Amino acid sequence: MPNAQLVYEQLLTAFKEIALLQSCQTILGWDQRTYMPAKGVGLRSRQMALLAGMLHAKITAPDIGSRLNTLKASDLASGANPESAANIRELAYSYDKLVKLPREWVEEFTRIKAMAQTVWVEARKTNDFALFLPHLKTIIDFKRQYADMIGYDDDPYDALLDDFEPGATYKEIGQVFAAFRDELVALAAQIAASTVRPDGSILTRDYPVEVQEKFGKEAAAAIGFDFDGGRLDQTTHPFCSTLGPGDVRITTRFYPRFFPAAFFGIIHESGHGIYNQGLPEEHYGTPLGSSVSLGIHESQSRMWENMVGRSRTAWRHFFPRAKAYFPQALTGVSEDDFYFAINEVKPSLIRVEADEVTYNLHIILRFELEHALAVGQLKAEEVPAAWNEKFRALLGISPSTDTEGCLQDIHWSGGMIGYFPTYALGNLYAAQLFAQAGSEIPGLEAGFSEGNFAPLRQWLTEKIYRLGKRYRAAELVKVVTGKPLSHEPLIRYLRGKFGRLYRL
Amino acid sequence: MPNAQLVYEQLLTAFKEIALLQSCQTILGWDQRTYMPAKGVGLRSRQMALLAGMLHAKITAPDIGSRLNTLKASDLASGANPESAANIRELAYSYDKLVKLPREWVEEFTRIKAMAQTVWVEARKTNDFALFLPHLKTIIDFKRQYADMIGYDDDPYDALLDDFEPGATYKEIGQVFAAFRDELVALAAQIAASTVRPDGSILTRDYPVEVQEKFGKEAAAAIGFDFDGGRLDQTTHPFCSTLGPGDVRITTRFYPRFFPAAFFGIIHESGHGIYNQGLPEEHYGTPLGSSVSLGIHESQSRMWENMVGRSRTAWRHFFPRAKAYFPQALTGVSEDDFYFAINEVKPSLIRVEADEVTYNLHIILRFELEHALAVGQLKAEEVPAAWNEKFRALLGISPSTDTEGCLQDIHWSGGMIGYFPTYALGNLYAAQLFAQAGSEIPGLEAGFSEGNFAPLRQWLTEKIYRLGKRYRAAELVKVVTGKPLSHEPLIRYLRGKFGRLYRL
Repeated sequence: MPNAQLVYEQLLTAFKEIALLQSCQTILGWDQRTYMPAKGVGLRSRQMALLAGMLHAKITAPDIGSRLNTLKASDLASGANPESAANIRELAYSYDKLVKLPREWVEEFTRIKAMAQTVWVEARKTNDFALFLPHLKTIIDFKRQYADMIGYDDDPYDALLDDFEPGATYKEIGQVFAAFRDELVALAAQIAASTVRPDGSILTRDYPVEVQEKFGKEAAAAIGFDFDGGRLDQTTHPFCSTLGPGDVRITTRFYPRFFPAAFFGIIHESGHGIYNQGLPEEHYGTPLGSSVSLGIHESQSRMWENMVGRSRTAWRHFFPRAKAYFPQALTGVSEDDFYFAINEVKPSLIRVEADEVTYNLHIILRFELEHALAVGQLKAEEVPAAWNEKFRALLGISPSTDTEGCLQDIHWSGGMIGYFPTYALGNLYAAQLFAQAGSEIPGLEAGFSEGNFAPLRQWLTEKIYRLGKRYRAAELVKVVTGKPLSHEPLIRYLRGKFGRLYRL
Repeated sequence: MPNAQLVYEQLLTAFKEIALLQSCQTILGWDQRTYMPAKGVGLRSRQMALLAGMLHAKITAPDIGSRLNTLKASDLASGANPESAANIRELAYSYDKLVKLPREWVEEFTRIKAMAQTVWVEARKTNDFALFLPHLKTIIDFKRQYADMIGYDDDPYDALLDDFEPGATYKEIGQVFAAFRDELVALAAQIAASTVRPDGSILTRDYPVEVQEKFGKEAAAAIGFDFDGGRLDQTTHPFCSTLGPGDVRITTRFYPRFFPAAFFGIIHESGHGIYNQGLPEEHYGTPLGSSVSLGIHESQSRMWENMVGRSRTAWRHFFPRAKAYFPQALTGVSEDDFYFAINEVKPSLIRVEADEVTYNLHIILRFELEHALAVGQLKAEEVPAAWNEKFRALLGISPSTDTEGCLQDIHWSGGMIGYFPTYALGNLYAAQLFAQAGSEIPGLEAGFSEGNFAPLRQWLTEKIYRLGKRYRAAELVKVVTGKPLSHEPLIRYLRGKFGRLYRL
């Protein structure tokens, strides 16, 4: 038997090189969405295809598989060596999945998704679900094939979910969501019945873009985004792009007469960015240097955006600054009025515009529908009717067009079935982790009112960021908070915050 | 013997893939000099090293060599097939050079250059030639070793020159430069003795950066730079970066109280960009889709910058626009005064700030010195004295510090000995090509005064850009103008233009 330590180091060297090559893909993607000239698109897709092919060959190379087999049987994979065990567990997990997929199947599905996305853009523009339907059908077929090839214990949907939230199952998530759902509907109804209303017009005044950019960057830096190791650029659909240590880039979109979109967008992406900036550099390219899951990632963006960024205390710090930056828009506006305006709750049709309370209902709706599609309980052609019916049940309104309904999101057209739950999981993890931070850090929220965000960032760095992928998400939550994931902390947080605002 | 056509296609496929991978390097380099955050430098150098290693392996792969050998002996390399013959000639030429260099030697020289550049930065800052001297010595040693490994007929300097201006020789260039040099010195002296002087202060007024950017982009678009297939960004040391078809990026640096630097810098880089945008897309990745040489490339930037951009006729078109863009700075300034100001001739110490006449003397000085270093006639420690003496002989002044003298340029510290002549060659080619364009295009310069630059661009596209590397530089000049390279067109152009301005 070969020396396991040597094999392990060879494996890590290979994956560090793979990460470097992936980071070249990342910058091509970042550039495509920020600065690439229009006519560069053909060349860009050829560059991307070349790197994807090279990466696939490297990641599925037989010597990776044989090294992993050696290591799985070695002491390095045992509980006595938790760090190497985590690396081996996660690398083997990805490898075993990848090699189950025939290359032709992957290439065929890539083509199908590219076509479906193009058609989806057109279908959404023209409100033509029938146009998209055959593509949606094919995608569901392929995802069901995928589940069969990858394998699953209880539910084919688990195999899909696993790509975005490794180890999560329909059963576990479904239980949390089911309990959460009814309480959310009740809370939204209470809020709708309240006679107190914020003045939302405060937010739709003149907010000059250059000033928004300056204020947004100041706020991002205040919560701990490191601009010496990152940037802020403009794009159409904001994202956070991480090349690697020292290079984490966030993006936003500015509206000259709407304040919240860019400001909270920047804080949200900064949350993702702070997580990536806090990953241990020495493990870059290996699971121990990577983030846990999409859900845990989203917990960081949502915690900073909502639990910190939209908090009463943070605006004690930010509001005087906002007044200085936007003297015209905020003349005569009180801190309380502003705070209420940025926290208005109102059922709306579009997920990405939803408030903290109803956002989760948008997600639960998609989760229930895509599960039904994945297990064959719902047919693709039934999606519009099911969407509208469920929307009314959950949010009390329903869309008059599919463009504002089941065609609004890009995910399904891109084959991303199983992705949506990670958004609500992010909120749930965030609340549970934030409550724990509050119990461990004295004066946490009071600090926000003085612009002191460092204790939270340090706590998160120590408890989450520095660990990389050492634990799966469910286990991490248990390790950090001492309890399994529950909807209780989030519903408690929402009831407290919005109960006060809406005087429930 | 294998089917030559098949082998040829396999070879081109390999090189098209190599070009795609190189274009990933290009965007990493572009990003590093425009947007990369400070802390990203470590990751960037690892990404660059990875791609460089992968590219080296691909370019020097044995099957490339065996394919080239097959093709060199085939009909595809004969005059009957000029296109494939040019591709095979150039690919074999690069390959044969590369495989002569031991890998350890290349890696060692890479380290030496990196160190020398760091030391050079410090030496220039502190005016400490002695600090840089040992590094310069080592670099000269390595370049002399390089010449021996690559081989040469007459002069070791030819092997160095060949990297930047393939096929050029010290003898040929030296003859042209020698004749040119004396005439230039005489012309500069005549100008110095003239009693007529422009008012240079016109150019050092308030020129707001945003307006400069707008005007510069308008001018770049006017001469034919395609912004749908390119961009303009800001950087410290401006450059043009070509990813490939549809993606050609130029950069500049703005000074709020100095007009010419950014404006003519943009026109200069646009000249490079227009060349690259005009290369035949179908040959991307092969010599037929590549530019001829650094000298021919520079001829395009200098032609657009000087012969067009600083011409009397172009400013009939641009000056009314400049007045509208900069009403404050240009109040009471006449078109003639402005035209004279942007064409002031005055001996100066710094190459990159030199005017059209004296610039060539800066280059000839470097050419003579670096040749003497390469053949062992001059020792590295003698450079400062030789520089200052030659400077006085050519330009009538001499630097009081090495920072303003022999330490001013980055080239030698980066191992680029043999590069400088391409700058003066660019001017010489430009003049000869521009004179030919003038004789073939009716009303060429009159068109500039109406903002009509398309005929020149179309002529250059047809005569030069579309041909890629079909001809070497010297041959191209002969094919396009019917004559070998001569200093006559440039000296005639300079005498005419500056004779009128300075009333000689």
